Amino acid sequence: MKQTQSGTSRGQGELALLVEIRQRVASAASLRQNGGLCLGIGDDCALLAPRKGEELAVTTDLSIAGSHFRLDWHPPEAIGHRVLARGLSDLAAMGARPVAAFLSLGLPRSLTTAASRRLAASRSWVQRFVDGFLSLAEAHNTPLAGGDLAESPVAVADIVLVGAIPRGRALLRSGAKPGDLLYVTGALGGADAGLARLAELASPARPNPPRIPKKLEALLAPHLYPQPRIALGLRLQRRGLASAALDLSDGLSTDLAHLCEESGVAAEVNAALLPTHPAATLDQALHGGEDYELLFTAPPTARLPRAIAGVPVTRIGRIVKARAGRSTVTLISAKGAKPLEPHGWEHFS
Amino acid sequence: MKQTQSGTSRGQGELALLVEIRQRVASAASLRQNGGLCLGIGDDCALLAPRKGEELAVTTDLSIAGSHFRLDWHPPEAIGHRVLARGLSDLAAMGARPVAAFLSLGLPRSLTTAASRRLAASRSWVQRFVDGFLSLAEAHNTPLAGGDLAESPVAVADIVLVGAIPRGRALLRSGAKPGDLLYVTGALGGADAGLARLAELASPARPNPPRIPKKLEALLAPHLYPQPRIALGLRLQRRGLASAALDLSDGLSTDLAHLCEESGVAAEVNAALLPTHPAATLDQALHGGEDYELLFTAPPTARLPRAIAGVPVTRIGRIVKARAGRSTVTLISAKGAKPLEPHGWEHFS
Repeated sequence: MKQTQSGTSRGQGELALLVEIRQRVASAASLRQNGGLCLGIGDDCALLAPRKGEELAVTTDLSIAGSHFRLDWHPPEAIGHRVLARGLSDLAAMGARPVAAFLSLGLPRSLTTAASRRLAASRSWVQRFVDGFLSLAEAHNTPLAGGDLAESPVAVADIVLVGAIPRGRALLRSGAKPGDLLYVTGALGGADAGLARLAELASPARPNPPRIPKKLEALLAPHLYPQPRIALGLRLQRRGLASAALDLSDGLSTDLAHLCEESGVAAEVNAALLPTHPAATLDQALHGGEDYELLFTAPPTARLPRAIAGVPVTRIGRIVKARAGRSTVTLISAKGAKPLEPHGWEHFS
Repeated sequence: MKQTQSGTSRGQGELALLVEIRQRVASAASLRQNGGLCLGIGDDCALLAPRKGEELAVTTDLSIAGSHFRLDWHPPEAIGHRVLARGLSDLAAMGARPVAAFLSLGLPRSLTTAASRRLAASRSWVQRFVDGFLSLAEAHNTPLAGGDLAESPVAVADIVLVGAIPRGRALLRSGAKPGDLLYVTGALGGADAGLARLAELASPARPNPPRIPKKLEALLAPHLYPQPRIALGLRLQRRGLASAALDLSDGLSTDLAHLCEESGVAAEVNAALLPTHPAATLDQALHGGEDYELLFTAPPTARLPRAIAGVPVTRIGRIVKARAGRSTVTLISAKGAKPLEPHGWEHFS
C-alpha cells in the first residue's frame, strides 16, 4: 500500500488496485477516529497514537499458498477473511482493542491483473480477497493503515495487527497457577471438520475452488470464516477474570501445552466437558487447528458467566503443578487418565 | 518467532532455529531498556509502551527471492541486512527512533535445516541471514520482538518496524512548499553501480553467490550493506530542520515525484549539484534504487550544516509551484532544462 516500492515494477493492474484500496480505506475514515490511527496509507510509515496509559500489542502472521490456504480450495474472500482473522485472534487473546492492520501481499501477476476467465465473477482474485479482508476489518473497527504489494511466484500474505491495552492489563500466557480452572470459548473442532468437508468437495483436477452448496455453508463457516473473539477478550481483560489466555490456532492439545510451558504448570482436561462442535469428532476437538477460540484460565474464586459477549464459555479442566516425569497435559475420560500429547497440526501436507 | 504456528509442521531444524533466535535476542535484553519494548518473543503479541507524548510509526516491507534479492547473487548475511535496512530506512525518513522489529520468514526447507554442502561455511543459510539481520539490529538498538516462520517454496521476508516520535513531529512527505530547497544525504547511484558489478561476478550456471574479492568489497558495500540514516533522521526531526522527507528506495526520479505529489508541488533538480557516487553514472544517480539515503526539503531560511551525524548533506535543487501541463520534476543541466520522468526501477527483471 505504500507509494514507494523497490524491487518490482508495477503493472497498471497493481497501481489501480493500490488506488482502489486507498480509496476504500479513506472512505471508511470514521474508523480512524476512535482507534488511535493518526496517519494511514501514503507516507513512509503510518502513525499511531495510543490513549493515555495504554500500551500497544503487535503481532504478525505469515500465510502461504499451499500451506495455510489453497487457491484451488478456498474462495478468495475466505482467504482474505482468514488472513485477517489470524491476526485479530492474537489481539483477542491479549485482551487488546484493534488499532490498525498492515497487509503485505506477494501475488502472481495472474491474480492481480484481471479476473480469470475461470472464475464466475468478473472481479479479480485480489479484489475478492480484499473484499473478504475489509469486511472483517470493518466488523472489528480495524483500519488498514499500510502494507506492501509485490509480485511473487507464490501467493503470500503477511498480516500485522496493532492493538491497544491499558498498561499492565494484557492477558499473558504465563499467568496460570495450580488450582486455576481451565476454560474455552465457543465450540471445538468445527474448523477442522469444515476443512475435511471442503477437501472432499474440491476436485484434484480443477485449479479453482469448488462452488459451495447452500446447505453446506453453515458446516464450512467455522473453517472459511472463523470469528476472532475480540469482544470476549476485551471483556475478560476489563473485568480481570482471566489469569492466562491464548488463542486456539494449532489445536487444543498443542496450544494448551504452550500455555503450560509459559506458565510452568501442567493441566488436566476432562473429555466429557469438551464443547465439541456437532460436526466434529473428539479427535478434531482435541487436535484440530484454526478454531480461533480463546483458551484461558481463571482462579476458582472467579465467577464466570456461561456466555461472554454472546459466546458460550465452558470449563473443560484445571491447572495442576508440573511434575518431572509426568506429561504436561492429561486427558481424563471414562476410560481413565492418559497423557494428551501435542499433535502438531499439519495442514494440507 | 511465535510459539504457536498454524498451517505448517515444524521440523527439528526450524524449532532449533527458533530457540536459537530467542536466546540471542534475550541475551541482548539491555536493548529493551531504553526503547519501549515491554514483552518480546513468546506470547500471542509483543507489548510496546511509548514514552509520554510519543506516537508510534509503523512500516512494513516485503522482500521476495527473485525480485528483491537473489539466492545466487547475494550472500545470506547481506540479504538479512538489506531486509532490515529497508524498514529502518522508512523510520529514518520519518525521524523516528527504532523501538522494535518483527520478521516474518517463509523459507524452503533446504535453507533452514542444515548448512548446504554448496556453501563454504558450516552455518545454514538462515543462520547466516539472521547474523546479518541481528548485526544491523544491534547497531541501531532495535530488538527483534516477534515474527513468524513458515515453510515456503519461495524465500520471502516481510519486515515490520515500529518506531517512536514526539507527537506531531514526524517528517512527512506532504510538507514541502514552493521556495523550499531540496537536499539529499550521502552519495547517489552507489547501490545501483554495486548491483551491476555483482551481476557481472555472478555466474548464471551456479546456484550460490559468488565469492566477493577483497578489493571489490568497498564497491559492493552500498548495494550489499546500505546504511539506514537513523541518526541523521532523528537530528532533522529534533532540530525541526526539514519541511518534508522520504527515503530513496526506488531512485531519485521516482521518489522525488512521490514527494511532489504528496505535497502538491513541483521540483527542479540541478544535475551539476548531484553528489553522484564515484563509481556511478549520472543515470544511476538519477534513477538507481536502494541507496536508502534521505531526500528532504527545508525552507531557504534554515541553516543546514554540510554534514549531519557524519553524513554529507547536499543541496540539489528547489521546490516550485506545480503547474498544469508542466512536468512534476525538471532536470537542469548545461544542456538546458528537461522533464525528469520517474523511471520505475526494475530490479532483476
